Amino acid sequence: MVQAKVRLFVDHPLAQGQTVPLDKDQSNYLFAVMRLKEGAFVALFNGVDGEFQAEVTTANKRGGALLCHGQSKPLQLPPDLWLIFAPIKKARTDFIVEKAAEMGAAKILPVNTDYTNSDRIRQDRLQAHALEAAEQCGGTYVPEVTDLQKLDRLLADWDESRQIMFCDESLVGAAQTLKLASGATSGDKWAILIGPEGGFSPAERARLQALPYAHAVSLGPRILRADTAAVAAMTVWQQHLGDWS
Amino acid sequence: MVQAKVRLFVDHPLAQGQTVPLDKDQSNYLFAVMRLKEGAFVALFNGVDGEFQAEVTTANKRGGALLCHGQSKPLQLPPDLWLIFAPIKKARTDFIVEKAAEMGAAKILPVNTDYTNSDRIRQDRLQAHALEAAEQCGGTYVPEVTDLQKLDRLLADWDESRQIMFCDESLVGAAQTLKLASGATSGDKWAILIGPEGGFSPAERARLQALPYAHAVSLGPRILRADTAAVAAMTVWQQHLGDWS
Repeated sequence: MVQAKVRLFVDHPLAQGQTVPLDKDQSNYLFAVMRLKEGAFVALFNGVDGEFQAEVTTANKRGGALLCHGQSKPLQLPPDLWLIFAPIKKARTDFIVEKAAEMGAAKILPVNTDYTNSDRIRQDRLQAHALEAAEQCGGTYVPEVTDLQKLDRLLADWDESRQIMFCDESLVGAAQTLKLASGATSGDKWAILIGPEGGFSPAERARLQALPYAHAVSLGPRILRADTAAVAAMTVWQQHLGDWS
Repeated sequence: MVQAKVRLFVDHPLAQGQTVPLDKDQSNYLFAVMRLKEGAFVALFNGVDGEFQAEVTTANKRGGALLCHGQSKPLQLPPDLWLIFAPIKKARTDFIVEKAAEMGAAKILPVNTDYTNSDRIRQDRLQAHALEAAEQCGGTYVPEVTDLQKLDRLLADWDESRQIMFCDESLVGAAQTLKLASGATSGDKWAILIGPEGGFSPAERARLQALPYAHAVSLGPRILRADTAAVAAMTVWQQHLGDWS
């Protein structure tokens, strides 16, 4: 079988022999931008059925169709890790969502904190970024991006069986090593919480420190920007508890 | 002493009682953009003498001056870690340099590889990004950004006592764990090599694999973009061998 160069997320069931209709944007992308012809192969995934190699049967720029051949990858769910972050400037917020998808977050939750600069996000744009990152990185799953909510509120409704690793800027320079909750094992539910530029407010920090399921970590002796911290914290987690080990 | 909100790199000796003249750009930044007045404090570092708290003595937008009070941080050199990467699109190249400085690279080396898309960089712009990142992250050191060179050439002149950790896309999805050279200890000289989008060519991979001081690692089951891979690889290294532990 020819290996597809293009990967595409479709919101449609996938199975061998299944015909998959394409919407206008997808058709334009495959046939106008990527200039695929009938007979070309595309890798499809839908977040549920794994990845399939599909052949272009109708290369119409306004509404083409593909035919699924065999499955090329089974569904691989990411570990049950959420990334919670405070939105920052637009480009960096986009990067955080993209990085979270690449690094294997199961869910991405933008939150408003006491020192957050922005109070609205474009959830649809961020979800599109997560989808594109999944297409690029070879994943078979697209993490959900939730709408902006208040950190206070999120913590009030928290499922206490989900541990929180929060990155505390006030620990920068401290000799504290990166250690996760002792006794934590793969398969536990976790969330990583990255604060905004300027860190958490004293009230937020006090609240987090009092939660028995929240664990402060330091990410080295320099102050990392929020987007850098997100990737670094997910690397630490994935190595110790996630699907990198 | 008032704690300064602004950090500034200056190419000038620093010591208690030292007067530091500012050039036009620095003066414009402090007195027009940040609107500092005489008597305000600025944290200065020069990559050699550590960080000093300095007081504005002449708030002239075209050429002001500061007076150094006490040292607020000693010089903290990063570990002897180089980051070698193949330049990609402009914004992402800027991000890699910024991230490398935040994550504590001692030297940043852009290289041309067989599959590199760009064959020139603006070394001065990248150096300015590294400097700004050092100002932001609270570091007292600015990593040098070298000019673009061929990977072939860099490897031909390589100091064999410097280990190379290279991130091999062909290992993605393999069960291979992230392990660094056995017997490696803090204080060893290292370089992390990140390939371009599209990875290393077969010839490059073969050459790297044959080097006794080069070690391939996998960064999890998804394919990471070069900028994500740079942060993730440096996190792994800093935790095991660098200044995070």
